Amino acid sequence: MSEAFDAVDIIRTKRDGGSLADDQIDWVIDAYTRDVVADEQMAALAMAILLRGMDRREIARWTAAMIDSGERMDFSSLPRPTADKHSTGGVGDKITLPLAPLVAACGAAVPQLSGRGLGHTGGTLDKLEAIPGWRASLSNDEMMRQLADVGAVVCAAGSGLAPADKKLYALRDVTGTVESIPLLASSIMSKKIAEGTGALVLDVKVGSGAFLKHPEHARELAETMVALGTDAGVRTVALITGMDTPLGRTAGNALEVRESLEVLAGGGPADVVELTLALAREMLAATGLDDVDPAERLADGSAMDVWRRMVAAQGGDPDADLPEAKETSAVVADADGVLERLDALAVGVAAWRLGAGRARQGEPVQAGAGVVLHAKPGDHVRAGQPLLTLHTDTPERFDRALSALTDTDGEGSAAWVIGAGDPGDSGDRADIVIDRVDA
Amino acid sequence: MSEAFDAVDIIRTKRDGGSLADDQIDWVIDAYTRDVVADEQMAALAMAILLRGMDRREIARWTAAMIDSGERMDFSSLPRPTADKHSTGGVGDKITLPLAPLVAACGAAVPQLSGRGLGHTGGTLDKLEAIPGWRASLSNDEMMRQLADVGAVVCAAGSGLAPADKKLYALRDVTGTVESIPLLASSIMSKKIAEGTGALVLDVKVGSGAFLKHPEHARELAETMVALGTDAGVRTVALITGMDTPLGRTAGNALEVRESLEVLAGGGPADVVELTLALAREMLAATGLDDVDPAERLADGSAMDVWRRMVAAQGGDPDADLPEAKETSAVVADADGVLERLDALAVGVAAWRLGAGRARQGEPVQAGAGVVLHAKPGDHVRAGQPLLTLHTDTPERFDRALSALTDTDGEGSAAWVIGAGDPGDSGDRADIVIDRVDA
Repeated sequence: MSEAFDAVDIIRTKRDGGSLADDQIDWVIDAYTRDVVADEQMAALAMAILLRGMDRREIARWTAAMIDSGERMDFSSLPRPTADKHSTGGVGDKITLPLAPLVAACGAAVPQLSGRGLGHTGGTLDKLEAIPGWRASLSNDEMMRQLADVGAVVCAAGSGLAPADKKLYALRDVTGTVESIPLLASSIMSKKIAEGTGALVLDVKVGSGAFLKHPEHARELAETMVALGTDAGVRTVALITGMDTPLGRTAGNALEVRESLEVLAGGGPADVVELTLALAREMLAATGLDDVDPAERLADGSAMDVWRRMVAAQGGDPDADLPEAKETSAVVADADGVLERLDALAVGVAAWRLGAGRARQGEPVQAGAGVVLHAKPGDHVRAGQPLLTLHTDTPERFDRALSALTDTDGEGSAAWVIGAGDPGDSGDRADIVIDRVDA
Repeated sequence: MSEAFDAVDIIRTKRDGGSLADDQIDWVIDAYTRDVVADEQMAALAMAILLRGMDRREIARWTAAMIDSGERMDFSSLPRPTADKHSTGGVGDKITLPLAPLVAACGAAVPQLSGRGLGHTGGTLDKLEAIPGWRASLSNDEMMRQLADVGAVVCAAGSGLAPADKKLYALRDVTGTVESIPLLASSIMSKKIAEGTGALVLDVKVGSGAFLKHPEHARELAETMVALGTDAGVRTVALITGMDTPLGRTAGNALEVRESLEVLAGGGPADVVELTLALAREMLAATGLDDVDPAERLADGSAMDVWRRMVAAQGGDPDADLPEAKETSAVVADADGVLERLDALAVGVAAWRLGAGRARQGEPVQAGAGVVLHAKPGDHVRAGQPLLTLHTDTPERFDRALSALTDTDGEGSAAWVIGAGDPGDSGDRADIVIDRVDA
C-alpha cells in the first residue's frame, strides 16, 4: 500500500526549520508505530526536533497522535475524583510512595502509572519492588478494582497506552535526543492524558541532579505541559522544585521505602515532608477536595493505613523486613565546617554504580544498594565524621561509586564543599518549591 | 568486550555544538562499521553534524577514519600518471563517458570508480549498462590490467573501499542527512583517496538541477574537498560549474551514451564539449601532461579509439545498436519567443519518472527512457514546435513525467519560460565553468 507521506520530506522540513503540518505529524507517528518509518528515520527527526524545536500547535498534535496510537483509560465510573502526579525525576525522589496513599486518604483516587529507573535517577517501581512479594503489573480490571477499594494504585503502565511513546522513548534514550522540551512534554503528557486522570500535578525538577539544569528550561517544560493538559481537559498544575541536593537522606530502592515509611509514620526528613504536602495540596485543590488537610492524615495514621492496604493489594507484605545490602562503607568529612553543598548528581551516580540503578533497560537492580546521607547542606560537620554511607551487595563496586563522589569532574573535585560559613538551616528545611505554573 | 566510548556521549557532544576529538571520530566510524553503533545512533549523529557542522580537523579525521575502514588501492606500479574526476551530479551529466577515454588518449591513466543513480540525477554505470554486454563489476586485477592496456576504466567501486562510507551513504539517503557539506566532502574524498589516484579534478555543480543550489555552498564544498585531497597527497583541483539547465541535449541512459559518442566523434553539444575539455585540461595539468591538447585527440579520433577499447574490455559491443524506448511523446512550445529558461531539476525529475532513474537502491532502470531537448535557453522557438521529447517503454508514465515539466510547484508553473527577449547565444554555448578552486 502506498503511503500518504514520505519520511524524508518530513525530516527535511523540520531540519530546515519549518513547521510540520497536522497530517504530517499524524502520519509520522502512526507510520513509526507500524514500523513503516524506520528507527533511523525517527532518530534523525528527533534530533532535528531537538535542535529546531516545535511550536505549540505541533507539540499538541504530536501528543494527540501519540495518544491515538493506543487505548485510553476511563475512570469516570469511580465514585471519587482522580488525581495523578508526575515527577521529571531526581535523586532520592521517593515522593510518590507517601503521596499516593496520603492523597487517597484525603478522598481522591490516585491512579499512578509509573516507570522503572534508567541512569542516575531511580524508578518508583524499582523502589516498591524492594518490598517482598509486591508486583508492578496489574490488569486494567485489577487496577480499577484497587482504585475503588483502596483509593491508590502504583503500577506499571500497560503496553496499550501510547505505544508510539513507548517506542520513541526507548529510541530517544540511545540517540541523545532525550533533552528536547517538545519531546519530553509530549512523552509525559501523552501517557497521562491517555491514562484518563481528571487532575494532574507535575513536579518539574531543576538542578544538578535533575534532567533540566536551568530554571528557564524547567519553566518552559512546565508551561508546555500545563498547556497540553489543560487543552486536553485535564486540570493541570506544575510545581518547579529544587534538585541540587538529594531529596531526603537516602537514594536507593529499599532505603527510600524505609524513609517513606518514616514520613507515613509522621516523621521523616523535612524536605520530603514539605514536598509531599505541597504536591498533595495541589492534587486536592485540583480535585475540589481542598477542605482536607493532608498533614492531619499523616499525623492520624490514615495515610499509613492506605499504604498498607495498597501494598497488600499488590501482593506485598507491609510487615516484611526490607532487604539490606550485604556491605557498607562510610565516606567521612575531610574538614571541620559547614556543609555548603552536596551534589545530587554525584550521589545519584554513586547509588547507580552501587547497584541501585541500571545502565540499560531490563537490567536487574539491587534492592538494598544505595547511599545514606548523614548531613545535608547547612549542617555543621567535623573532620572524620561520616558524611555518607555506601550500601551494596557487591563490594567491588565501592571504588567506582566513591570516585563519583570524590572526583566529579576528572580533576579531583569532590561532590561536597565544607566551608567556614555560619551553619544555617539544614538543607532538609530549605524551600524546595521554587515556582508554580498554573493554566 | 567493553567499548572505549559511548555513542550517546559522542552524539550529545556534537548536538550541543562541541568538537569531536580524534579518538571519538576514529571509534564512532569503526564501531558503526562493526554494527556496535546502531543505525539510529548514526542517524542522530549525522543530523547533529548537518545542523552543527564540523571543523576542518574533524572533517579530515572523519575522512581518514572512513578510509581506514577498508582497503586502499595503489596505482604506483602503472607506467602512466593517474588522474580521476568526480562530479557531484547533475541532469544530463554524461561527461565521464567522453572524458575518461579522452584523458587516456592524452597519456594519463584514468581509474574511474563510479556509482549508480538515485533520484533525479543519473548514474554513470547505469548509462554504460545501456551498451549491450557491458559490465560494471571488475576485480582489482582486471581493473589494473585494463588501466595498463587501455588507459581508462569506468567500473563499480568494490565493496572493500571505504565500507564505512558505503553504509553511511545508504543511511543518509533515507534520513534527510545528505545535504551536509562535511558529510558530502568526506564521503566523496574517502573513496577517491582510498582509490589511490595521483590527481583528482572535482566538478562541483551548482544550480536548480544540482544538489547544491547556492554558489557559496558549492564553493565551500569545493574548498573543503580540495583541502582534504591536498592534505592526503592527491593533487586536487575543483571547477564549479553551472547546472540550472541540463547539460547537453539529452537526459537518460542510452540517450546520453549516444550524445557522448557524438562528442567523441568530434561533434556534440557545445556545452558538453566545453566542460569535457575544461576537465581534461585540469586532469592533464595535474598529472604534468599539459603539453598535450585534448581538443586534438577528439578531432583525430584517438579518444574514440580508446572508448571502443574501453567498452570492449568490459564485455560491451561498441558497434551494437543502443536500446531505444518503445514510446515517445512530444512537449511543444506554447508561445513564440526566446527560450529564457529550461529548468534542469524538472527535466531530471521527468527523465526519472519516465524510467531512466530509480527511487530506491537496487531498482532496475530503463535503458531507453529519458528526455531529449530540442531547444536550450537562448534559442528562438515558435508556438507548436517540439521543445522536448519524452521517451519511455511504459507510456503510463507520460502523465507524471509531463506534470514534472508543466507544474513544477503545484501551482502550474512550467519548467520553461519563453520570453520576448532578443535571442542570445544558445545555452549550449554559455560559459559553464563558473569558478575554479585550487590548493
